[in-house]
Amino acid sequence: MTLRTAEAYLRGLRDGRVVYFRGERVPDVTAHPFLRLGAEHTALDFHLAEDAAYRDLVVVEDPDARRPISRYFLIPRNAGDLLARHRLIETVTRAGQSFVPLVKEIGTDALFALMIVGAHLERAGASYLERVRRFYAHCRDGDLTMAGAQTDVKGDRTLRPHQQPNPDAYVHVVEERGDGVVVRGAKAHTTNAVFADEIIVLPTRAMGPEDRAFAVAFAVPANARGLRFIASPRGFSARSVFDNPLSAPRKTVESLTIFDDVFVPWERVFLNGEWQAAGALAKIFVEFHRFTAISYKPPLLELLLGAAALMAEYNGIAAAGHVRDKLAQLVMYLETVRGLTKAAAQGCRLREGIAVPDVALTNAAKYYFAWHYHEMVRAVQDIAGGLVVTAPMEEDWQNPETRRDMERFFTGSGGVSAEDRLRAANLVRDLTASDLGGYLEVLAIHAEGSLETQKLTVLMDTDLEPYKAYAKRVAGIAAEAGTPARVPHG
Amino acid sequence: MTLRTAEAYLRGLRDGRVVYFRGERVPDVTAHPFLRLGAEHTALDFHLAEDAAYRDLVVVEDPDARRPISRYFLIPRNAGDLLARHRLIETVTRAGQSFVPLVKEIGTDALFALMIVGAHLERAGASYLERVRRFYAHCRDGDLTMAGAQTDVKGDRTLRPHQQPNPDAYVHVVEERGDGVVVRGAKAHTTNAVFADEIIVLPTRAMGPEDRAFAVAFAVPANARGLRFIASPRGFSARSVFDNPLSAPRKTVESLTIFDDVFVPWERVFLNGEWQAAGALAKIFVEFHRFTAISYKPPLLELLLGAAALMAEYNGIAAAGHVRDKLAQLVMYLETVRGLTKAAAQGCRLREGIAVPDVALTNAAKYYFAWHYHEMVRAVQDIAGGLVVTAPMEEDWQNPETRRDMERFFTGSGGVSAEDRLRAANLVRDLTASDLGGYLEVLAIHAEGSLETQKLTVLMDTDLEPYKAYAKRVAGIAAEAGTPARVPHG
Amino acid sequence: MTLRTAEAYLRGLRDGRVVYFRGERVPDVTAHPFLRLGAEHTALDFHLAEDAAYRDLVVVEDPDARRPISRYFLIPRNAGDLLARHRLIETVTRAGQSFVPLVKEIGTDALFALMIVGAHLERAGASYLERVRRFYAHCRDGDLTMAGAQTDVKGDRTLRPHQQPNPDAYVHVVEERGDGVVVRGAKAHTTNAVFADEIIVLPTRAMGPEDRAFAVAFAVPANARGLRFIASPRGFSARSVFDNPLSAPRKTVESLTIFDDVFVPWERVFLNGEWQAAGALAKIFVEFHRFTAISYKPPLLELLLGAAALMAEYNGIAAAGHVRDKLAQLVMYLETVRGLTKAAAQGCRLREGIAVPDVALTNAAKYYFAWHYHEMVRAVQDIAGGLVVTAPMEEDWQNPETRRDMERFFTGSGGVSAEDRLRAANLVRDLTASDLGGYLEVLAIHAEGSLETQKLTVLMDTDLEPYKAYAKRVAGIAAEAGTPARVPHG
Amino acid sequence: MTLRTAEAYLRGLRDGRVVYFRGERVPDVTAHPFLRLGAEHTALDFHLAEDAAYRDLVVVEDPDARRPISRYFLIPRNAGDLLARHRLIETVTRAGQSFVPLVKEIGTDALFALMIVGAHLERAGASYLERVRRFYAHCRDGDLTMAGAQTDVKGDRTLRPHQQPNPDAYVHVVEERGDGVVVRGAKAHTTNAVFADEIIVLPTRAMGPEDRAFAVAFAVPANARGLRFIASPRGFSARSVFDNPLSAPRKTVESLTIFDDVFVPWERVFLNGEWQAAGALAKIFVEFHRFTAISYKPPLLELLLGAAALMAEYNGIAAAGHVRDKLAQLVMYLETVRGLTKAAAQGCRLREGIAVPDVALTNAAKYYFAWHYHEMVRAVQDIAGGLVVTAPMEEDWQNPETRRDMERFFTGSGGVSAEDRLRAANLVRDLTASDLGGYLEVLAIHAEGSLETQKLTVLMDTDLEPYKAYAKRVAGIAAEAGTPARVPHG
Repeated sequence: MTLRTAEAYLRGLRDGRVVYFRGERVPDVTAHPFLRLGAEHTALDFHLAEDAAYRDLVVVEDPDARRPISRYFLIPRNAGDLLARHRLIETVTRAGQSFVPLVKEIGTDALFALMIVGAHLERAGASYLERVRRFYAHCRDGDLTMAGAQTDVKGDRTLRPHQQPNPDAYVHVVEERGDGVVVRGAKAHTTNAVFADEIIVLPTRAMGPEDRAFAVAFAVPANARGLRFIASPRGFSARSVFDNPLSAPRKTVESLTIFDDVFVPWERVFLNGEWQAAGALAKIFVEFHRFTAISYKPPLLELLLGAAALMAEYNGIAAAGHVRDKLAQLVMYLETVRGLTKAAAQGCRLREGIAVPDVALTNAAKYYFAWHYHEMVRAVQDIAGGLVVTAPMEEDWQNPETRRDMERFFTGSGGVSAEDRLRAANLVRDLTASDLGGYLEVLAIHAEGSLETQKLTVLMDTDLEPYKAYAKRVAGIAAEAGTPARVPHG
Repeated sequence: MTLRTAEAYLRGLRDGRVVYFRGERVPDVTAHPFLRLGAEHTALDFHLAEDAAYRDLVVVEDPDARRPISRYFLIPRNAGDLLARHRLIETVTRAGQSFVPLVKEIGTDALFALMIVGAHLERAGASYLERVRRFYAHCRDGDLTMAGAQTDVKGDRTLRPHQQPNPDAYVHVVEERGDGVVVRGAKAHTTNAVFADEIIVLPTRAMGPEDRAFAVAFAVPANARGLRFIASPRGFSARSVFDNPLSAPRKTVESLTIFDDVFVPWERVFLNGEWQAAGALAKIFVEFHRFTAISYKPPLLELLLGAAALMAEYNGIAAAGHVRDKLAQLVMYLETVRGLTKAAAQGCRLREGIAVPDVALTNAAKYYFAWHYHEMVRAVQDIAGGLVVTAPMEEDWQNPETRRDMERFFTGSGGVSAEDRLRAANLVRDLTASDLGGYLEVLAIHAEGSLETQKLTVLMDTDLEPYKAYAKRVAGIAAEAGTPARVPHG
Repeated sequence: MTLRTAEAYLRGLRDGRVVYFRGERVPDVTAHPFLRLGAEHTALDFHLAEDAAYRDLVVVEDPDARRPISRYFLIPRNAGDLLARHRLIETVTRAGQSFVPLVKEIGTDALFALMIVGAHLERAGASYLERVRRFYAHCRDGDLTMAGAQTDVKGDRTLRPHQQPNPDAYVHVVEERGDGVVVRGAKAHTTNAVFADEIIVLPTRAMGPEDRAFAVAFAVPANARGLRFIASPRGFSARSVFDNPLSAPRKTVESLTIFDDVFVPWERVFLNGEWQAAGALAKIFVEFHRFTAISYKPPLLELLLGAAALMAEYNGIAAAGHVRDKLAQLVMYLETVRGLTKAAAQGCRLREGIAVPDVALTNAAKYYFAWHYHEMVRAVQDIAGGLVVTAPMEEDWQNPETRRDMERFFTGSGGVSAEDRLRAANLVRDLTASDLGGYLEVLAIHAEGSLETQKLTVLMDTDLEPYKAYAKRVAGIAAEAGTPARVPHG
Repeated sequence: MTLRTAEAYLRGLRDGRVVYFRGERVPDVTAHPFLRLGAEHTALDFHLAEDAAYRDLVVVEDPDARRPISRYFLIPRNAGDLLARHRLIETVTRAGQSFVPLVKEIGTDALFALMIVGAHLERAGASYLERVRRFYAHCRDGDLTMAGAQTDVKGDRTLRPHQQPNPDAYVHVVEERGDGVVVRGAKAHTTNAVFADEIIVLPTRAMGPEDRAFAVAFAVPANARGLRFIASPRGFSARSVFDNPLSAPRKTVESLTIFDDVFVPWERVFLNGEWQAAGALAKIFVEFHRFTAISYKPPLLELLLGAAALMAEYNGIAAAGHVRDKLAQLVMYLETVRGLTKAAAQGCRLREGIAVPDVALTNAAKYYFAWHYHEMVRAVQDIAGGLVVTAPMEEDWQNPETRRDMERFFTGSGGVSAEDRLRAANLVRDLTASDLGGYLEVLAIHAEGSLETQKLTVLMDTDLEPYKAYAKRVAGIAAEAGTPARVPHG
């Protein structure tokens, strides 16, 4: 058996799934003039598997099944596996012009988390692990794509799930039947779910005993009855590749994913009422997913750096002190995110036999990326100049009369043509100052959890006592009995 | 005589001016479906003059002519005049939903600078002052609108004007005739020039003796022969007021403004070859214009603050510590910009009888605004949540099927309707994460001069010697003869 | 009647007050080798009143009494009074080499707050106002110095005053007698109290009904029975003026001020159990005191700027891009703090007939100062170089052998002598990298309330509703009935 | 053969070296009441080698000599060796209460750089390599300590070495003799050189052909004739361990190191006139040394974190949102520096068979540490409170009268004793707000090269072309012939 082809993957998306886009029902996402572009983008994973230059990275032999599988499905057992996964995600994203496909990445993040929590629950007497394993094998062997749907719409955030006036603010079980459960609710901003074969649903937060009905995890095919998607064009409505070299051809599609009494058979139910495990499942998934996040960020940062360096050259300011300063900072920003990602892989710890990236480093990397993103955008915009938002656009370029003026007045430094300079400026605009640019800014903050959640996670994950004990020793404060004897890493 | 009506102003724009937009020649900017909105916006200055609630602020008695004039034309003689000008600009901009009309503002900034430099040149033997005064009276008495065109396209920024391989990289005089001069070149990003009666052209930088031909300032009517505009739709192409409450109805139009051998009669030539004065003219204009800038920024910051506070409420997170922290910072950001602006007015100094706002404070305010703008955007996006870029849009809202889901799942905290929450989220997106949001970011950095120019100006304007002398005294270092005896402000 | 002389002031400090310093009881603070320097510093207010160059600023005619008084005692009635007070504090501090005397400043801050709250309580039926007025006249007419003691030692900050396991964690009334009250407790870090004639005590926070005993304000002379001070040498133990040009000669003395059952006669009791007023009194005092704070900061920032500019020159790096960048930022930092201070005075509002500086601007200025202080220290240290902490010191300079090497190797750029360069480096070290430098850093954050309190104050003082209403109007959200009709400043 | 004992090391320092301290010649650094403490601190490397708990880390078998050597001398051949070196430096520094001994660390950094440049010069025909190897074997086999002296006093920094009016501004060769060279000049801030056996001298910058005499590297014993040290007490003059728990017992000693015509025999001359190699030698040394730097920083950051967490607990504010925020940032700061250090080791590249840490990551880590250090100090001071600089000190604690008050009023939250709270506050002060605190701030910026040098290094080391090519491809700009085909890491 071999991996699926891109064509087979696209064919699979024509399954009757219910997708709305810009106010209309879309009969076939692979045929729609706009969504088609998104599907072609997510197909990248399959194209690269067929490309000799990438095959070794994208395809790997499964140690159990002893046959080639997509590397995404490889359960990480050590730092090397995580580093390869990091390289895979980074490479595919770079090939995708800085857009991550995010159909196999997030799906396997969810599967690994389900395996760890499943193993844990197994010991507590709940038998989900075998189901998870079978579902994993189903996805791996079918070379499927899987979206992750985690973030509930949440309603009033000061209230817990069971306190919500709108009972559907969190996805929950409304009925248990002999053959499975019926779920209701909606998940917000599920990325590329309209291009996935399977939708994996996880809880979004820790739960209390009264939230039992909301402590639910499961998977359904994208064409499940009662499941529908309202896809958002935000960030990606541009049409001209000249004006919007990134957002016109490459489409990431976020959706509101609605579960209108969707039936889930038992073999696809992975959590059902074990509220104590909801928080752990949410957190472990996010750990894997933040590692995915920091793996797919570098190509975007490479592009910011490249675009800034290019504009510096075209504007004739590459030697200016403040420009060099900004370029140095862009380089360090990129290298720091990537360096911390590799360190997070190196510092992984085994949980239930699965290598989980170092939590503090993963979160520090994600936080560092997100906290400084807007500053880096500012640096790029500063170098690029006002032209980025005031120049004429493609329609003017196509009119010979106005094009003549544009050619005459937008020539850059060192004989760079007006066209090249405008294209570079358009890249900067699309990256930083367009609907896409805004999408990227918000994504930097909110995707994979907001800045606050990263700080919270780091604090939850860090035992401050050894540090306090170190400070006490140095300050000459007598230690109480039972104080840890050594500093961490000591 | 009374001020012009908005209708008379709009009528005046139908003068045969040559405007290109999205690849086509526009016969009448007041009739074009898109540009029309921009013209209606710039007409705001005239509407408010007719509105009893604003009249006292907008209309003032001219101390010379003893008749009502638009306050923009009032030559500032003291702090009070500058404070009133500040309040006028702020008020009109707020009425314009945070968009400054920028047709009388920038034009009078240019006129004041021309008067000061004209008076200075007068003493050096060059007779421009009377021309400037007559042109000023012409604009004031006709209640005209005037765009300012300063920034040349610059070509290779490492080269001075006369060194450019493309001789048209800076606007320059190509011929002197008995009755005037002929000018050639182009000015980049001239704001709302397509809606102005007059175009005032100023040099963009200090010049050397060999740049003589580039040391030129003048005014021409917008329909002057050889003058044409390529207007850019960047930042403002949106159509749905639901999706883009700011950028759909309000249009600011930047243009590439081309002088294709435009004849300027002598009475409209305000600098012609006096290269020593080019830098001063550029700088003094910018001082006035940066004061205008920091006067029109607060309404935008009020809107950012209001949108953030609204989303905090709708999301149910208004009491969270980190949210309160961000709101406090947004308040201080707003108050600091406005406070420094008032202090700059209070600290004005008379030059040639005209009150010039304090240079260090004006620049410190502009720099503070620009340097922190992206951080504040981040704070607003952080509070607003991912919904801002992932929600469905108006077309989905119009379809009853999808609207039902949207109403069900986007309800906010405290019973806020989905529609209100989406509208608020759309405001945040339009302000911070759309084509407009990107335009505003780049504008924050580059409009009225980049961050570097503000630092440069502050250093040029500050004598460090008294501070060094103070440090020496405290350090016990013997002062050389002639050292300033006292610290500034001592 | 004329103002007191410095000599008379110093004589008054020899009153038997109980002061401990470095483990020993100090019989006379004006004779102690170390504390003497502090007393001479606080005497500056009196010296300047006798100096013709300053007299007009320091001495003013009292509008009621029609005779000269120290300007500190002038009750501010308008922006002009506040601006003059700002200039007075700034000027005295500059003359004090960036150290504020803080004996009349803080005392009058407290008196003004007591007057406002007294007037308010008067209407509520509590008769403190007349006492406050008489005490004010006593201080003014005697030209006294008054320390302010506000910050309690607080014990466990998670608990309110009455909940503290240590009942003395907050100063409180332990007995009411026919002739007055007996108070107990201690106030932390009271600045220069050991050099003041009177100690004015205010509550440090808002109180609840059960905190009644802690809602107390009063004044006692510094030699009151039961009152004692433990003065701290932190930040100021240096002896060599060469090595520590600032901290060796100028001493600010913080003390733990202990009230060991101190009797306060009724005419000096200004609050006694009115717990509802405690928070307002604390807050209004702090508003005046933060205005004092931002008035005395600029001379320190001038010195940082001057020292940085001097080191840049001596090191031969004044023309380097990054150095100019840092100098520009130091200038803007200084001008912004001062500009906001002036704007706060201009924006004052009358409360009970007394001009209170604008709260948002005062707090924004203090916050801006404090938040950026460490960055500015970094900039100065960056320019100054490692020499600042690695060079030999005065003892080596006094030894001819080592001095020869120092003269040979520490010569600066442009023929600057080693001595001058070392003195300049020592100034930078003393300002930023010594016990004093550390004191200044902590002071920047904590004096006059921490960063958090400023954010809190700004939020308490700002009505967000008009901003939300503005956002709603722009977003197209229907306003509820009763929504404010206009944006603030509209 | 075994390693030297601490006692043997200290004995070796009694060799007649010429050290001045506080104006006096010190006959024996191990007997001087102050310097003795520094020597005991640098002896730590030897103590730990004898401690079973550390032996495996500190002692390693030399792969060539097949006998135990100090691990510092192990020439790194791969990432594992660098990681172990990192762990060694971190561990020793932690044992040293956050002070790095810096006698073997910096010395071996210099030796590795000399080996790489020696190998390079060997191929160019200059025979230094064998000398370097012999000197390395001499140090390793004798288990010696070696200071690195690199930073010249520099004079006028706008001038190159040969242009200096003071010819001794850079160390240089003044005479070549048959048996060696004679050198003159001085090196600034050489750390712990007074406690080293050998002084290794390297050039501080790139040189031009006319700087030939300044392109010199060599080693001399610390008691070489003509060599003398003026040791600085800055940062470390405190005496009370209660008041200054860090700076009183632990002394790091910086010196001005003077070469007053010191003779160096040929076998200890490692560069002599090869000006082209001076820059490379300076740079490669700094790469190793910055890796040392980021290896020894974490224990300091652990202490900052621990002290902050302790004060948060003692002050009763550990649960406050803003405190948790700051603690999270301190954790991420620490983890980021350490994570990048490990990533730099993992990303090492072999040069002449020696593993050099990744340049971009090493510099990004050092820059990140230095850039944020002052912010982290601010966070710690913010949590700790004003008490840190206003409390009484040890002398007051020793007086029973004042101690009684201190015990009564400084008790902390949860029954923490006044003594413990004061000790913790003293630790914060000593770390952040004392002479030591200032030393640490300046060190953060300037040690191992200033912020600017790190940015410069990163830019020099990064080829921007592949990033520009990536941006071009995405922007649709036709690549020129010869453009790199792939993005880096592609």
